[in-house]
Formats: sequence, C-alpha cells, structure tokens
Amino acid sequence: MKHYLSVNDIDSVNEWVEDALILKKKPLAYKKLGKQKTIGLLFFNNSLRTRLSTQKAAMNLGMKFMTMNFGKDGWALEFEDGTIMDKGSAEHIKEAAQVVSQYCDILGIRAFASLENQEEDESEMIINSFRKYASIPVLNMESSLSHPLQALADILTIEEYKKKTNPKIVLSWAPHPRALPHAVANSFVKAMQLKHADFVITHPEGYELDPKITNGSQIEYDQEKALKNADFVYVKNWSNYKDYGRVINQDKNWMMTQKKLGDAKFMHCLPVRRNIVVEDAVLDGNQSLVIAQANNRTFAAQIVLKKMLESLL
Amino acid sequence: MKHYLSVNDIDSVNEWVEDALILKKKPLAYKKLGKQKTIGLLFFNNSLRTRLSTQKAAMNLGMKFMTMNFGKDGWALEFEDGTIMDKGSAEHIKEAAQVVSQYCDILGIRAFASLENQEEDESEMIINSFRKYASIPVLNMESSLSHPLQALADILTIEEYKKKTNPKIVLSWAPHPRALPHAVANSFVKAMQLKHADFVITHPEGYELDPKITNGSQIEYDQEKALKNADFVYVKNWSNYKDYGRVINQDKNWMMTQKKLGDAKFMHCLPVRRNIVVEDAVLDGNQSLVIAQANNRTFAAQIVLKKMLESLL
Amino acid sequence: MKHYLSVNDIDSVNEWVEDALILKKKPLAYKKLGKQKTIGLLFFNNSLRTRLSTQKAAMNLGMKFMTMNFGKDGWALEFEDGTIMDKGSAEHIKEAAQVVSQYCDILGIRAFASLENQEEDESEMIINSFRKYASIPVLNMESSLSHPLQALADILTIEEYKKKTNPKIVLSWAPHPRALPHAVANSFVKAMQLKHADFVITHPEGYELDPKITNGSQIEYDQEKALKNADFVYVKNWSNYKDYGRVINQDKNWMMTQKKLGDAKFMHCLPVRRNIVVEDAVLDGNQSLVIAQANNRTFAAQIVLKKMLESLL
Repeated sequence: MKHYLSVNDIDSVNEWVEDALILKKKPLAYKKLGKQKTIGLLFFNNSLRTRLSTQKAAMNLGMKFMTMNFGKDGWALEFEDGTIMDKGSAEHIKEAAQVVSQYCDILGIRAFASLENQEEDESEMIINSFRKYASIPVLNMESSLSHPLQALADILTIEEYKKKTNPKIVLSWAPHPRALPHAVANSFVKAMQLKHADFVITHPEGYELDPKITNGSQIEYDQEKALKNADFVYVKNWSNYKDYGRVINQDKNWMMTQKKLGDAKFMHCLPVRRNIVVEDAVLDGNQSLVIAQANNRTFAAQIVLKKMLESLL
Repeated sequence: MKHYLSVNDIDSVNEWVEDALILKKKPLAYKKLGKQKTIGLLFFNNSLRTRLSTQKAAMNLGMKFMTMNFGKDGWALEFEDGTIMDKGSAEHIKEAAQVVSQYCDILGIRAFASLENQEEDESEMIINSFRKYASIPVLNMESSLSHPLQALADILTIEEYKKKTNPKIVLSWAPHPRALPHAVANSFVKAMQLKHADFVITHPEGYELDPKITNGSQIEYDQEKALKNADFVYVKNWSNYKDYGRVINQDKNWMMTQKKLGDAKFMHCLPVRRNIVVEDAVLDGNQSLVIAQANNRTFAAQIVLKKMLESLL
Repeated sequence: MKHYLSVNDIDSVNEWVEDALILKKKPLAYKKLGKQKTIGLLFFNNSLRTRLSTQKAAMNLGMKFMTMNFGKDGWALEFEDGTIMDKGSAEHIKEAAQVVSQYCDILGIRAFASLENQEEDESEMIINSFRKYASIPVLNMESSLSHPLQALADILTIEEYKKKTNPKIVLSWAPHPRALPHAVANSFVKAMQLKHADFVITHPEGYELDPKITNGSQIEYDQEKALKNADFVYVKNWSNYKDYGRVINQDKNWMMTQKKLGDAKFMHCLPVRRNIVVEDAVLDGNQSLVIAQANNRTFAAQIVLKKMLESLL
C-alpha cells in the first residue's frame, strides 16, 4: 500500500484488524520503524482527535511530525489547471504538493467537503490533487467523501466489543443544526460492506447517501424497525445528499435515546452534540463506546502508518 | 501529587524549591523519566512564556509534547450539564477531556478568567471540568483564579536573590489600560502565605483581592508606607474584584518608579507595559528580576512535571 | 559566525556551498551536533517552505524545535524605546527577546517588510531588535530587507545545475497583483555579487531596487537583451522601491514565457502565481528548478544551523 485514501485501500480487513489489536497491546513494538522519518500533517480544517491521535501514532512508531494549519499558517492554494492566478490564491497545488514532499516522508491531509460545490467535493479535489502531485505517500485524515482512519477505528472497536461472530450493526441518521459532510457515514458504510456485516442504514426518506456508496446495503426508513435486535448502533448526522449540503430535516424524533438503544452499544465518531444527536443518558451510560472509538483512532493510524512506512523500505 | 492546580498542591514548599534549584543546575538529570510520555498542552488563550517554558521543561525530562490552540484549532466546547447543544458549541467537555486523555499522559490547560461571568470564573469552570472528566493528571498553565507555575517560579527567584533569611516582600498594584485577571496576584499571595513571608499587599482602596485569598495577609493602602524597607517588590495590575472585572482606577501615581523602588528588587510576571505599570528605568536597571523569573518558569514547570511523572510510575 | 542575518554573514561562499552539498549527501552525518539544543521559530508572517525546511534541517541535526505564530499565539510587541505602552502592544521587544532566549539556544525570526513604513523596514526593526536584545544567536527566516536562507539555497541550486564555470544569470522582474517585499531580490543580488557571477538585472524603468544593494550590478531595462544567452533566469516580482511599496506596473509583457526563456534554467523562490509571473509551460517543463530550490532550502538551513551550533560549542 502506498497511499491510504479510502477504506478501499484496506487490502485485507481481518488481517489489519488483527495486526492493529496486537499493536495496541504493544504500542512501542515498532518504535524503530519510523526512525528519522517525518510525517507532515496539513490541516485545512479543525481537528482534535485526528490531530492528536495521528501525532501519537507517529510518535509510537518513532516518527517525527510537523503539523501545519495550512489555511492559517501557509498560503491560499489554487487547484485549477491553467488558471491565471491574479486572485486570492498565492500558490498552486502543483508546487505546494511537490514542495511539501521535499521535507516529509509521508503526508497527511485533512480537507472537509465544502458542501457548496458538489462536483469539487465528489472529485475529492484537494486530497486527490495532493496525491497526484506529491511524490510521497498520502494519508487521508478526512476528505470530502471519506474518513477511513475513523472507519478503521470503528471496526477495531466493534471487534473488541462484539459478543457474537456476526453482530447486527445499524447506522442511524440523527438531526443536527448545521450542515455536516458525508465522509464519516460513507466510510462506515464501506467498512461494513468490506466486513460483510449484518448491516442496516436508517434515515428519513430523502436523506439517502450517495447510492454509488450505499450500493447493496440495506436501507430501512423506519428507525424502530431498523434498530430491532441491534448489537451496535452508530449514530451520525449528515446533510442532504440530493439537495446537496442542505439541512432539510431536523426532526427530533430521530435523536438516539436510551429507550431506542435497548441493549445495543452506542457509537459515534465525535464531536457530538448532546441532546440533539443523542441524549445524555446514552453518552453517560455504560453502553457508549465513543471513548473507546477515540482511543482506537491511535491504533488505526498506527497500523496504517506502519504499513506506509514498510512500503518505504 | 496527581494534579497541579493551585499553590495548595505544593505539599512542602521548601523541599520543592530546593529540588527545583538542584534541577536547575542539572536540567537533564532526569531526561529518562519522561521517556515515551506525552504532555498535551491545550491553550484557550495566548501564551509565550508558559508555552515555551513548559515545552522546554517537558523536553528536559525527555517527554514529548503536543500543543494545541484549542479555541482556534479544535472545537468550541460546552461546559454545562444537560444542555441541548443546538448553539455554537460542537463538543462537550465530558467527551473532550476523556478523548484527550486517550492520547496524552499529562494534560496542561490554559484558560483565563472571562472577567465577565464571575460565578463561572470563581468555579474555575474550565480547568475543573478538565480535572473532573480527564483520566490523566492536569497541570494548571493559568486558570481563572490561579497561576501556580508562575508563583512557583517567583518563589524560586526570591530564594535565589534574597540576602536575608526573611526578606520583606511587597505586592504592589499598578495601573493598566485593560482589565486583567486576578490569577497571578492570587497565586503570589498564596505562595507568600505558604512561605510565611514578611509580606504586604498594597493597592488603592476598593481594589481588594478576594478576601478568601488575602485572608490574614497584611493590606496597606499607602503605597509609600508599604514599600518602606522592602527587599522585593512584585508589581502587578489586576482588575477590580468587587465591581467584577472593571477598570475603575488608572491612577498613574501607582506606577512603579526607580525612586519608589529604592534598593529593592523588582519582580513582574510579564508581559509588562512599560511606563504604565513600571517605568523604563526599573526594567532596564539591574534591580529587575523579570528575566530571572522568566528563566525560572522552566524549572518550576520541570519540578512539577517531575513530580507528576513520578506519580505515574 | 554568531548570527545569520544576511548574505554578508557568509564568510566564504565557496566553502559553504561545498559543505552544504556534502551535507546533502549525508543529511544525518551531524545528527548528534544539535542534541539537547532547541531552536525557537517565531513567525510574524505566513510560511510554508521556510517553516518546514528549517524544522527539517533542525531535526537532521538532532535539534528540537518550538514553533510559534508569534502574532497569533503570543502578544503584540512594542519596538519603540521609551514608549508609554497604553495602546495595543502588550509586551516590549526588550522583554520578549530576552525571555525567548531563556528557553532556546538559537532563535529564528520571520518578519516581512510592512511596505508601509519605509524607515522601519529599512532599519530591519524587528529582526534587528531581536538581535539586539536576545542573548542567543538569531537566524533570519526572511526579514524586511533580506532572505538569506533562500539566497543560499539558490546558490546551491545553481552550483548543482550549472554546465559551465561561469554561467550567465539573469534576475528578471515579473508583474504581480499584490505589493511584494524586496527581500528575495535583494538577497539574490547580494549572493550574485558575492559569487562574482556574470549577472544582469532586468526590470521596467522606475523599478530599480535599492541602489545601495544593486551597487555595481548591471541593470538592463530591455528584458530581451538581458535574457540573451542566459543560463539561469531567476524571475521575481517586487513592489516599487522609489514609490515605496506601490504597484505601479503590471505589464504582462514582463511575464516569463518558454519562448523568452530559451534554453535557460528557470528559478523562483515560490510561492509563484502561474500565468502572471510565469506561464504554465515553464513551470511544467523540465527547465524549471523551483522544486530543486525548495529542496535545497533544507540544506541551506542545515549548513547555517550547523555553523551556528558549532559557534555555541
């Protein structure tokens, strides 16, 4: 594996999960692998978990890291080919990506969907441009369409907490006051497909994710039906996909409650808005796995970085 | 000691001072103690000395550090219990504190007083919330009410420069164009009480600090009287406590001058506004200890981190 | 050498170039030299190349680094002597420079020309104030008047790519929508003088650089004539010097094209505005050395830091 851009780059999900959980037991086992290697972490958007867990994973592997809030600390980038750059952008991605490649061995990029320009978002313009022009491996720290480090941490968490071989997993849409990207939901769906999981997606009618992604996964519009006998319930808001990036539904009945959850485990990628997405009782109860998921972000990043480092040898 | 939240957490001030001054002679003596340990430094406010000296102290102990401007790089936090999070805050402190605890071994927090909501400030809402929900030791890098790393550096500096066993120390209020928190003054007062110092506080009438803190310390409203025979004069502005957070006095006569200072040593935590808080002659003269204080910030942080690391063993 | 403030601090250009190119072959050869040494990198302006390459150079030498966006993370600085600090500035350079010196062994400063206050810019107020008050060596990461790390990287690049002993080198002004500083052009001119290069500067009439700097270097207003038989063409915009900081010419005929370039190598310090400063064909062609220049920033910084570290022994 050279790049880690989407869940599709996981060549053997069971092996990765197994390896990551071994790594979790001995996080410093490969502390010499990354010696004298540097990861550049470029953030076009805010980050807490991704920033700290990726830095931590790099340190566990003996790597150094250089973190930049790209938008704030660097120069505004131009992505279009052939433009006359007489506007706000001071630097073209072609130069920026090649330049950063001179100073780092691996490049992490976070760049959220704009939710304004669907075509740009769907083309994964920012991360794909870095992949195209950088001469070093690129790590997706959440792009327009996908958040594969989160999805990998989610699989690890399910693996650790499942009580049967093939648990029932539900992805349940929740209301939210702001328009959020589809990346986490997309990657979780793909991960479930990869795992051949017993998996149902539930959301209000009209809130379908990109059908090219949900392709084949079961959709059940009745939340109650969907949640029946669930072992894991992953709750997440996303903005509308058809009426792209709009918030057309804030129906509070879709909030996750302890009552709806039953005996299932609760999952969310965080940050989460309490009593909007999920009620306090769930997050404060012992069925919540959100901190375990956050913890697994380190080991998801670490197994990915380990594989990227090995590909550099 | 698990947390270092206030001067009260110093269990034996003389021992700490002695140990810190030994450490200052051999800053790298414990460079293996912090190996593979990480401190997360979360800044809700600006910082120069605290940021650099705490990072330096961590490095001297062999620790790694991850620094975040929390407000700018992360997510706006909610601190209230039971809120419906449909406003600006994207993440609750309950999650944030637990999440950060997954990636670090010690957590440093800087969060100034708002000077707007007295109740919130007095409850030390931010740092106490982190202490409550984090699962790792918390280091106070200046909270609403206290700045115990500064106070410890101040004691070290007095110890190094005193010429008699029990020098006279004066805390003298100074004017300032902006409303400043009480944290530095509070912690210095507490430190003087801890040291059973020959100590006087002087400020204009009406500028009393919280009486629960000055409790028992001598207050002298006549600056000239207070300064008589002083060995150390600590100058500091704070905003009004009773008329909470207001600037009700900018009387230039309270500025520290070389003439008023006499033969005493001058102290200030920095940053300091020249010719408002203190005249140039004092800062540029050889009675000023401000750089020595700044230097001791490293060793104050280092002795505290050393004790925190030892408590993790 | 104590400080590295301008190209004038290069005591033997041929030796430095030779040493840097040896270092480039074995970047980790001196990884013990910087052990337990820390460089503080203070940015008053944005940075991509300088930030990452200087950090990388420090790491290659075994140093630690502490990076601060000074304006955003720290306190607004006052530079004037004797001011009554009752305005926006919270800290005087005298304290700031001395304080930072307590925590670091070497201090890197980036502070662009304001292009508004010519006197201030020409006095190199910010970096010279740091040099004056800091007690540690100061590294210029681009000041009002000069960018000597860039110039050194440029010389290294010419050395690597030249095909004759004394190639013809042209500095060619280019149009730009915004007013840019003179630092890069100034330092390149000085570097060419130091190398006794076959060197021509070309720009529209009225766009003369500071004559104290170009002093003795050939100026040719006819771009076509200047470019004739060029081996290296360094393209760069700068704002007007006489009508200080203004943009009085945006003549597109001064843009560099493949046709004008002929067989010469193309150089630029980046970031570069495509199809304004230079056409795509040049940057995308194989005569462009811009990425090689960016790469050499690491080794320019590394040879300078190596010499600074050696001066600390």
